Amino acid sequence: MLIVQKFGGSSVADAERVMNVARRVTDTYRAGNEVVVVVSAQGDTTDDLIAKAKEINPNGSKREMDMLMAAGEQISVALLAMACEQLGCPAVSLLGWQAGFSTNSKYSAARIKTVKAERIRAELDKKKIVIVAGFQGINKYDDVTTLGRGGSDTSAVAIAAAMNADLCQIYTDVEGVYTADPRKVPTARKLDEITYDEMLELATLGAQVLNNRSVEMAKKYNIELEVLSSLKHVPGTKVKEVTKMEKMLIKSVAKDTDVARVMIVGIPDEPGIAFKIFSRVAQAHVNVDIILQSVGRDGTKDITFTVPAGEGERTVEALREYCDHLKAKKLFYDTEIAKVSIVGAGMETHEGVASRMFGALSDANINIQTISTSEIKISVLIDRADADRAVAAVHHAFFDED
Amino acid sequence: MLIVQKFGGSSVADAERVMNVARRVTDTYRAGNEVVVVVSAQGDTTDDLIAKAKEINPNGSKREMDMLMAAGEQISVALLAMACEQLGCPAVSLLGWQAGFSTNSKYSAARIKTVKAERIRAELDKKKIVIVAGFQGINKYDDVTTLGRGGSDTSAVAIAAAMNADLCQIYTDVEGVYTADPRKVPTARKLDEITYDEMLELATLGAQVLNNRSVEMAKKYNIELEVLSSLKHVPGTKVKEVTKMEKMLIKSVAKDTDVARVMIVGIPDEPGIAFKIFSRVAQAHVNVDIILQSVGRDGTKDITFTVPAGEGERTVEALREYCDHLKAKKLFYDTEIAKVSIVGAGMETHEGVASRMFGALSDANINIQTISTSEIKISVLIDRADADRAVAAVHHAFFDED
Repeated sequence: MLIVQKFGGSSVADAERVMNVARRVTDTYRAGNEVVVVVSAQGDTTDDLIAKAKEINPNGSKREMDMLMAAGEQISVALLAMACEQLGCPAVSLLGWQAGFSTNSKYSAARIKTVKAERIRAELDKKKIVIVAGFQGINKYDDVTTLGRGGSDTSAVAIAAAMNADLCQIYTDVEGVYTADPRKVPTARKLDEITYDEMLELATLGAQVLNNRSVEMAKKYNIELEVLSSLKHVPGTKVKEVTKMEKMLIKSVAKDTDVARVMIVGIPDEPGIAFKIFSRVAQAHVNVDIILQSVGRDGTKDITFTVPAGEGERTVEALREYCDHLKAKKLFYDTEIAKVSIVGAGMETHEGVASRMFGALSDANINIQTISTSEIKISVLIDRADADRAVAAVHHAFFDED
Repeated sequence: MLIVQKFGGSSVADAERVMNVARRVTDTYRAGNEVVVVVSAQGDTTDDLIAKAKEINPNGSKREMDMLMAAGEQISVALLAMACEQLGCPAVSLLGWQAGFSTNSKYSAARIKTVKAERIRAELDKKKIVIVAGFQGINKYDDVTTLGRGGSDTSAVAIAAAMNADLCQIYTDVEGVYTADPRKVPTARKLDEITYDEMLELATLGAQVLNNRSVEMAKKYNIELEVLSSLKHVPGTKVKEVTKMEKMLIKSVAKDTDVARVMIVGIPDEPGIAFKIFSRVAQAHVNVDIILQSVGRDGTKDITFTVPAGEGERTVEALREYCDHLKAKKLFYDTEIAKVSIVGAGMETHEGVASRMFGALSDANINIQTISTSEIKISVLIDRADADRAVAAVHHAFFDED
């Protein structure tokens, strides 16, 4: 098997952890697999480098910041290669450009364009463990670029896609994907499998187990992902196109408290107004999540939508002039809300999922303010104070009665 | 003018020093020059990286050590580029491979084969300050190599040679080259100029102001070097083919205490024996400096030679078997000696230089044990205890009477 293994910065934070990772890697290699490892910068290295730069120039160019950042992974790949050598296995480290990573030129948030994996292939053919610097590549000018935070996940999936790997394992500090946050819901259990789409919905809900772009890429190239613990030797959660868990209506209950609700009350009920409002929001580079439009009295309407909690103020500022022009009765935002969602491909073919969720919340005496649905997700906005209780109630309704 | 400026690790050890260097560089740039800067890793970075590696694997492969080391310069070039930006000047950092440095594959001590300076030229044409990572390149496999300690000097001269630069300035923690060590000889004075050959002789005497390979390369391509202080704004010492200092018989008096003397007493006076002895020393990778052969009594001869102080033991070990075979009377080494040398192209055309040196030593009641000469250097071996007195006496004889 050709296996790509990705380890994050905390997994290689010190010499002992680097040796732990090397043991994982060399065990996989000794079991007869071809192994490509993607590794991030050690622990706080990235933050330390940023601090060094800020001391000299708070606004250094992004090109130079990327040059600086890329040194972090260079250090960790070399150390991990030496750790594998120490355990008696041949290893070779490769930087982004050596591993064939071409990106666009958007420094600090570059997108991978191609991975030309000839060098990786050649090193595997020499029976070497190949250790690739995640998070980095070069653009058409031969300048070093970085993919932005979480980019090492994407590096790993991109290699898996380019090489048609059998499996891409993402090692992390959790054991996998759970039916709910296990710190909050004691009966939460680890999922054996989850679909790409379910994983994507969970990622947008703030459950940042996997970088979203990496899941999209895995889906596109049908790469089987596995999320698993870098500390415990237990199976993780596999992310794939179709799962065998037919019986499960939903996979997970998630909570998101990084939400602000913006309300515009009493604007004319005319065509084109919503377009103009959301154009202004987009110009302010604010991502809108749930939108609700309702007809008010006197031929007016109300528009409610959610944005990330930190963007409420900026959104209201961006809309103030236009809302004054519309003679809106009110324009305000608050953050006293939370979003609770259920995610599962099962709801596409099974009825009654929504009503079971709403019933659970009703039984718990929790008021639903807004509802939003996609094919495989149902989200409700509720009072933030009720959020943990809501997750527990919904999780109980779907998982504890089995 | 096209000026190459090289700054060592201590010159960029922290944010404040990086800003100091940036001021030097941007001053040179604002004066209308094209500026290429070569910089080493910050302060203790290289040692810190080595310590990290040793903790994981005391014998990591040299390829991976070079990969690790090269991250040090990557950090310093990015920081210096941002410092130049902070001072309002456009700058771009380049790694060894981006700057066109091709080397052979001798990891940790690679030799520069070519510098393809197209990218540097293109960036200069865009009116940028170009900041190049010293000490590193890539080999024909596209693997990162390092030039070994002091390699950044060579990087700077190689760029100057490839681009036909007008001047290559080596900034360091001394103000230039002196007629003797100014910490030991109060009347020592800084030289305005010195020839390549004189500089080479001084470097081999342990006066490590400039890396030797860099001086050889500067001589080969006739690049004018200047050694100067990164802290004080004063002229340094220029290193060039011919100097205007006709009147100076010698340029400098130097002392080297990193010397062991190996003696072989009472071996047959037959052809080929010296060859066999020094072949064995070479096989042990020991560099021999001064050799003296003398005819002893009874048809035997004695051979005395010097090696670096730390190699005495190993040299004697390498010779023991053969000397037993030769029935040598004695084989031993000691380190109670020092080498004192005078260097100067003037002695090629002026007589009496040697006798003036020997007279000064005689007046100081210092016994000369061995003498060795080249065209522009005279070295004597004396008791180590007399070394500083000898330097002072010889310096006085040549410099204080002017």
